[in-house]
Amino acid sequence: MNAGVDKPDSVNPALRSGLKKFKKNIPDIDYYLGGIRQGDRAVLSKAITLIESNRPEDKTIAGNLIQHCLPFSGNSVRLGITGVPGVGKSTFIEAFGLHLINKGHRVAVLAIDPSSTRTKGSILGDKTRMEKLSSHPLAFIRPSASAGTLGGVARQTRESILLCEAAGFDRIFVETVGVGQSETAVSKIVDFFLLLMLAGGGDELQGIKRGIMEMADLIVINKADGSNTQQAKLAKQAYENALHLFPKLPNGWQPKVLTASSVSGKGISTVEQQIDTFLRLTQSNGFFEQNRQQQALDILDNSLKDAIFGHFYSQKEIQKQLNYFRQQILDGKISPYEASNTIFEFYLNRLSGK
Amino acid sequence: MNAGVDKPDSVNPALRSGLKKFKKNIPDIDYYLGGIRQGDRAVLSKAITLIESNRPEDKTIAGNLIQHCLPFSGNSVRLGITGVPGVGKSTFIEAFGLHLINKGHRVAVLAIDPSSTRTKGSILGDKTRMEKLSSHPLAFIRPSASAGTLGGVARQTRESILLCEAAGFDRIFVETVGVGQSETAVSKIVDFFLLLMLAGGGDELQGIKRGIMEMADLIVINKADGSNTQQAKLAKQAYENALHLFPKLPNGWQPKVLTASSVSGKGISTVEQQIDTFLRLTQSNGFFEQNRQQQALDILDNSLKDAIFGHFYSQKEIQKQLNYFRQQILDGKISPYEASNTIFEFYLNRLSGK
Repeated sequence: MNAGVDKPDSVNPALRSGLKKFKKNIPDIDYYLGGIRQGDRAVLSKAITLIESNRPEDKTIAGNLIQHCLPFSGNSVRLGITGVPGVGKSTFIEAFGLHLINKGHRVAVLAIDPSSTRTKGSILGDKTRMEKLSSHPLAFIRPSASAGTLGGVARQTRESILLCEAAGFDRIFVETVGVGQSETAVSKIVDFFLLLMLAGGGDELQGIKRGIMEMADLIVINKADGSNTQQAKLAKQAYENALHLFPKLPNGWQPKVLTASSVSGKGISTVEQQIDTFLRLTQSNGFFEQNRQQQALDILDNSLKDAIFGHFYSQKEIQKQLNYFRQQILDGKISPYEASNTIFEFYLNRLSGK
Repeated sequence: MNAGVDKPDSVNPALRSGLKKFKKNIPDIDYYLGGIRQGDRAVLSKAITLIESNRPEDKTIAGNLIQHCLPFSGNSVRLGITGVPGVGKSTFIEAFGLHLINKGHRVAVLAIDPSSTRTKGSILGDKTRMEKLSSHPLAFIRPSASAGTLGGVARQTRESILLCEAAGFDRIFVETVGVGQSETAVSKIVDFFLLLMLAGGGDELQGIKRGIMEMADLIVINKADGSNTQQAKLAKQAYENALHLFPKLPNGWQPKVLTASSVSGKGISTVEQQIDTFLRLTQSNGFFEQNRQQQALDILDNSLKDAIFGHFYSQKEIQKQLNYFRQQILDGKISPYEASNTIFEFYLNRLSGK
């Protein structure tokens, strides 16, 4: 435990609450920042809990903490990784993560599943899934414990990335399940997007959201081992053919397809090499930095939009108007553009107090 | 010419303007609506010009006209059609359009090219491109004469669709060039999206925007004639393989690939059959109507967003804040979320007059 935290167990509750309040203003920043900068994973974990909290006092200190971590952030490669349940994400991340640690990296894994309401129980479950990696001193595994909105989850994840970077982790995985909307959100906060697939009759694809394939910088056909090896090679060929029908990405990268086995470890180092090739290309052509800057500016825009719309849609009178006009539109009585004009004028009048 | 319009050339300008103003309130609606309902293409064309106009008085009457056309709209199949320049869009639309007319349909073609500033000259050019179709009494061809924003072009196109429907056209093509953002906008106002492609080494794809293939309900390999026939078959196979890697669409439709020749006419009737199959599927499973209703509600939302953001971003003080904080973000001095919070509070305070 960090010496900066004391536990005033013997103090009476009122005084304790006062102390707590006092300690939240400045000392906690020192506690969190100090712990994070020392790479203390327990403190890092607590800091992420703070970021995920909805309590106003936690939000204040979380904002403050992010601000203090910013100068120490940015020095990592942020890797989005997705695939449907059963594709072997955990074993792949464990194998790949341990490989990266052997190469001298420090690895953090942030898992997102906005559809589930995970509890501490399933966090333990996640750690069990990646037993070797989670017990490694140079790794940090953190499933998102929050449900919440997509925008909220993206924000928490991006801020968690910053904290992990400030704690010295230089390879950060953001893991999603590949069936929802979260991949699009994640693609906007990572440098590289990896899609795990299985060889097979295409059935496994029924769960994958359309559009994900076009987001991928790299497709890895997982479980390419044993009797599955030949099928995996065929799948690789099929995906390569498909990807060649797409134009190159704006950053000059032509997405690749590889096969890998998390069990035998075959192909894992090739995955690392492909990511390195991507990094060399995009760092030399300036796209890596440019992409991060654009991502940050997009977050400002999207975040403002979320705030302004939240404000707009939360007003009871606006909701009434919306409900009325939505029905009028569905009944074919008004064009949606005309309805929009009317509601917008109503909004402006309300704002100006008319 | 419709008898309802007189040309008071001999009247003095002031009186003329007064007359005009008077005539714009009610008579013009009758003129436009009457002409449109009679299927008068000259009046329809003038009405679309009205919709494209930015003059406030034109906007008022245009809104009024749309409102009056709404009850007569909806009874068409709205077909988005795209492909890079050189793919043969005009000859394909001409061949397909004439085929549909022979089957008893009335065909309207609305062409969008937001990047160009088309003049009356190029409108004639467009009609020359589709000589037989444009001179056919059951067809109507109208290139968008406006540049403007994407949202604006989408709005004008959707409202033009309504007018064409009120004029009795039951197959409406919305044509785009496949290289910009307009396809996404168009996919939100049509029932079916057709992508024209060429057989070849994949070079022609370099111009196609990523993501378009996943929007397509049907890919047609065009110019499948003469020495190109065999290559077209191979391309069909390649695209079919690629599309099978994508999951089915939410409406239950598995996108198809066909070959066609606008010159020989081969394959054109199969295109029609595929579209009919799509319509039977989506009309029987309810998706067709559901999709149109969702599109209308989405337009309301997006249109409100455009209006509210236009209002937000147009304020000088907000622009100053944005410029300042964008730089702070790029310099790594503040997180985009924190910046968003600050700007949003500033905005709220301004609104409430603080």
